[in-house]
Amino acid sequence: MMKAVVLDEYGGAAGLRVADLPTPQPRRGEVLIEVAATPINPSDLAFIAGNYPPKPPVPAYPGLEGSGTVVRAGPGIVGRYLSGKRVAFVAGGGGGGAWAEYVKVPSGLALPLDNEVTLEAGAMSVVNPMTALAFLEIARSGNHRSVLNTAAAGALGQMVDRLLSSAGIRVINILRRPAHVDEVAKHGADLVLDSSSPDFDAELRVVCKQEGARLAFDAVAGELTGRLLAAMPGEATVIVYGGLSEQPVRAEIGDLIFKGKTVTGFWLTRWLPQKNIVQSTRLWRRVQRLIGSELSSEIRSRYPLESVGEAVTDYESDMSSGKVMLTPAGGTD
Amino acid sequence: MMKAVVLDEYGGAAGLRVADLPTPQPRRGEVLIEVAATPINPSDLAFIAGNYPPKPPVPAYPGLEGSGTVVRAGPGIVGRYLSGKRVAFVAGGGGGGAWAEYVKVPSGLALPLDNEVTLEAGAMSVVNPMTALAFLEIARSGNHRSVLNTAAAGALGQMVDRLLSSAGIRVINILRRPAHVDEVAKHGADLVLDSSSPDFDAELRVVCKQEGARLAFDAVAGELTGRLLAAMPGEATVIVYGGLSEQPVRAEIGDLIFKGKTVTGFWLTRWLPQKNIVQSTRLWRRVQRLIGSELSSEIRSRYPLESVGEAVTDYESDMSSGKVMLTPAGGTD
Repeated sequence: MMKAVVLDEYGGAAGLRVADLPTPQPRRGEVLIEVAATPINPSDLAFIAGNYPPKPPVPAYPGLEGSGTVVRAGPGIVGRYLSGKRVAFVAGGGGGGAWAEYVKVPSGLALPLDNEVTLEAGAMSVVNPMTALAFLEIARSGNHRSVLNTAAAGALGQMVDRLLSSAGIRVINILRRPAHVDEVAKHGADLVLDSSSPDFDAELRVVCKQEGARLAFDAVAGELTGRLLAAMPGEATVIVYGGLSEQPVRAEIGDLIFKGKTVTGFWLTRWLPQKNIVQSTRLWRRVQRLIGSELSSEIRSRYPLESVGEAVTDYESDMSSGKVMLTPAGGTD
Repeated sequence: MMKAVVLDEYGGAAGLRVADLPTPQPRRGEVLIEVAATPINPSDLAFIAGNYPPKPPVPAYPGLEGSGTVVRAGPGIVGRYLSGKRVAFVAGGGGGGAWAEYVKVPSGLALPLDNEVTLEAGAMSVVNPMTALAFLEIARSGNHRSVLNTAAAGALGQMVDRLLSSAGIRVINILRRPAHVDEVAKHGADLVLDSSSPDFDAELRVVCKQEGARLAFDAVAGELTGRLLAAMPGEATVIVYGGLSEQPVRAEIGDLIFKGKTVTGFWLTRWLPQKNIVQSTRLWRRVQRLIGSELSSEIRSRYPLESVGEAVTDYESDMSSGKVMLTPAGGTD
């Protein structure tokens, strides 16, 4: 038996509890991982709220990624190779979540960690870092020399700023709270605008023109998407990848028709499978190399599995001052 | 001197009057056309409302296209060739509108009409027919075997249905008024849905799945755009080309992110200049050939220039039962 987080009802942290469940048995092509660390991501909050597909029937098992040690493997050459190894993993495909003492995943979704990468860093090495690398690839493939980056105070937002900036792309960071401006600037961000300021739209327009910004990565959606679209020059694109505003996207007709602007979306789960094995391996090598620098995230608090409700509430209260980590094995490394 | 329609204030038909103005003098590379017929298009209504770029300072001169005879030409080989010829034309570039007894246009925007094409048909041979041909090209270049077509009761909507259907593309026609369903079906449209019906979203979803429809041409915008997007399968695109709803586009976050759907825009004024001279000539030959069939429009009423206010009000009252035509020269052919 093992302890695992169970979601009895979609709608928020109140639907969560910790239960004793049978430890999963890995079958052919699967491995069993003893979970060391597993973060709370914005996508986990969306899952708990019932806004993340697929939405399985309750009881459901949250947790999208984590790290740990492979303690058992079903038949198969990859599983045998992974046995005893420290790995990062993506959960969810097998019907069980990462927020548990043990998780069973297809062996292709367990990625061995370099010795220098801690289990805590490894626990956050797929969802955000791969997304940031995807954005870099998208920006480069369109020859963009500057991009807009919303929710820039969040872990992913900061990562996007660091990664794209160090690749020579100018990042225009956009925050929703004045309090975060100094903080993000302190972390080295160069261009920071506060969307709650009355001068925001005018300032953004000037900066977009100056920098020739025609691409935005937007985690907020709602009316902000339309404001980004309006501020950028003709032929610009907003790529929505998150819905922090919880509002439908709004865009002015004239920006679409007369200015030829576009709104589209990004989801890592759609993007990653487009990569072949060589490209995926290269991406993973790159994450390992940069996880201590451009692709790192700060952790602000750690909770045992039993305190999952408290942990989720903590993260929801402020998604911009470091990650909140669950540590099912009672600690890491 | 000549009579011409003048717009003194943006906001609607009330801002229009007919004035005596000096007849324009064609300069090098320009021709002067005696206007026989000039239609009221949805884009003219948008211009009068102040929603069509560029929005020149008032007094402004409405009228985007028309037909007539070249009565004078400035120096230049094209102008000399066009002298005395019946032409279709696009106005607006030279600072004067089509709703006048005479209009001056760059000679490249005056297109000679075949003998078989009447001046009335010729007056409607650029804006709508070229847009319909653009849609056919867009649908073909994406290998789309079916498309959605909103405002399907309008002149352009019917044209799109006829042109794409005869090219073997399945057109799913969408109307906003139940009264128009039978009328459009009577004109030969095969698939017609009424967006005001309570079953619309469910029906559209079924039809889109059946037909594999992943492309929509949308003249309505507002919340309809989001409903089209939601009804189509993953990776679908809505191309907004009109704003009949006069509402900003609304799209659900999940359709963009998880389903990879896209909203973008089309404007003939952006599309046409992408064509080289050979392609443009081929398009114009094609319009001439099809203007009596796939690319034809019915005319429901004709007004002299002096009754422009009445004509605009007539067209605004029902944009789906034939075009309203201004006849500055007091008649055609």
